[in-house]
Amino acid sequence: MMRLAALQMRVACGDVAANIARIERAAAEAAEAGATILVTPELALTGYGAGERIRTLAEPADGPALRRLSAIAASSGVAIIAGFAERADGGVYNSAAYVDGGERPVIYRKSHLFADYERGLFRPAEPSAVVFHHRGMRCGMLICYDVEFPENVRRLAEAGAEAVLVPTALPVGPSGRFIAEHMIRTRAFENQVAVAYVNHCGADELFSFAGLSCIAAPDGSMLAAANPTDEALLVIDFDPEAFARSKRENTYLRDLRRPGSSQGI
Amino acid sequence: MMRLAALQMRVACGDVAANIARIERAAAEAAEAGATILVTPELALTGYGAGERIRTLAEPADGPALRRLSAIAASSGVAIIAGFAERADGGVYNSAAYVDGGERPVIYRKSHLFADYERGLFRPAEPSAVVFHHRGMRCGMLICYDVEFPENVRRLAEAGAEAVLVPTALPVGPSGRFIAEHMIRTRAFENQVAVAYVNHCGADELFSFAGLSCIAAPDGSMLAAANPTDEALLVIDFDPEAFARSKRENTYLRDLRRPGSSQGI
Repeated sequence: MMRLAALQMRVACGDVAANIARIERAAAEAAEAGATILVTPELALTGYGAGERIRTLAEPADGPALRRLSAIAASSGVAIIAGFAERADGGVYNSAAYVDGGERPVIYRKSHLFADYERGLFRPAEPSAVVFHHRGMRCGMLICYDVEFPENVRRLAEAGAEAVLVPTALPVGPSGRFIAEHMIRTRAFENQVAVAYVNHCGADELFSFAGLSCIAAPDGSMLAAANPTDEALLVIDFDPEAFARSKRENTYLRDLRRPGSSQGI
Repeated sequence: MMRLAALQMRVACGDVAANIARIERAAAEAAEAGATILVTPELALTGYGAGERIRTLAEPADGPALRRLSAIAASSGVAIIAGFAERADGGVYNSAAYVDGGERPVIYRKSHLFADYERGLFRPAEPSAVVFHHRGMRCGMLICYDVEFPENVRRLAEAGAEAVLVPTALPVGPSGRFIAEHMIRTRAFENQVAVAYVNHCGADELFSFAGLSCIAAPDGSMLAAANPTDEALLVIDFDPEAFARSKRENTYLRDLRRPGSSQGI
């Protein structure tokens, strides 16, 4: 059993110290609730709409911001997933880090950048499947627009992920509502994985966010869903028994066939 | 503008003549409503649960059943898509035919057979993208379980399909309800295509069906949805203007990136 907390967060635009302090409070609250992992939104450290300042605020994975997050994880006993602007290879990536208080964070870099705003700020990463273990559960990460492409979730499921943890920055609008209400649970169902989709709420300097963070189970049911406007800490249990039962009934990964392949049925 | 009719149908198990007569009545009703194409369920000619009799009832694509359907299409002015058991290459496929009264039907063969029942009766086809034109609209076909795999709808969308027409035989149960209510509209949205998902209702000798036939637009909205239990003829318009507007806002096909590919952003 893995107990997960998800922070729908009102991020302070451009104020990394304030955002780390907010995450530290949430980690304490998550620990109190018995959770062992806390997921926060895309670019939770810098703010999503901080524009050109994001380049200045970008840090390497061994920089002070992630070292501070790792110390919070160590002292609270709660691993943290947070979106951050990563300086690497002479560029800046839109990344997410998993820190558990150990030496090295696990880093995932966003492959599918959304719109001119992101393409002007970040370098797109090659699509990848980063899978790590948390309390015996195999977890993968994606960021926002990535999860809207079924190929990306499939890649993680085929690499063995049982839970896909997704910091996001979903704006208000009908597409946003559709993604939160129909697409996320379909991604869970069609891959027989859990999906935690963790959004901003409120507005920053450039964007208004949809809230509606949600956590879907492999059978497509919603384990938890947040409101559209306010901060919320969702806490749910991933039950391996229920997951196994759903997988026995829904055989998508076993039955998938591709052209020219002998895989599957 | 293409007006489409979908027949949620109570199929007579093993009685091809009765099913063709039912489809002929629906084609007349569709013509009366101004539709130019009628979609019917998976194995609508033989019944889905006819078991071993399906082998005996299987016909080649130029056999009497499809010739009769083609004559109905010619006289009614309504093209017909119907699921049938196709005898070909020394085996039997679970196929769908598009007949428009012309010389040759367009045939699609199911690639993803569901469960031991289908695997005992049919040969699986290589996954394929069959695209044809109907009244200026590019259409593709899938059958039932096929559409639950995002890869299959993506393949059609990348081959240029604007509408994906899906005869199905969805059984009652929570998975069936999830597919009808969340997954079909996600397939439409993530590929920016229309999806018409046309099911049986009632029960045959082996199965109870979920009804809930539905037609989803590229923006994820439901253009029409049938009830869970009774026959229904849904009639809707595919509006190219609305589709184009949705595609401008939702850029999935343009933005898709695959590992090692230079495609997309």
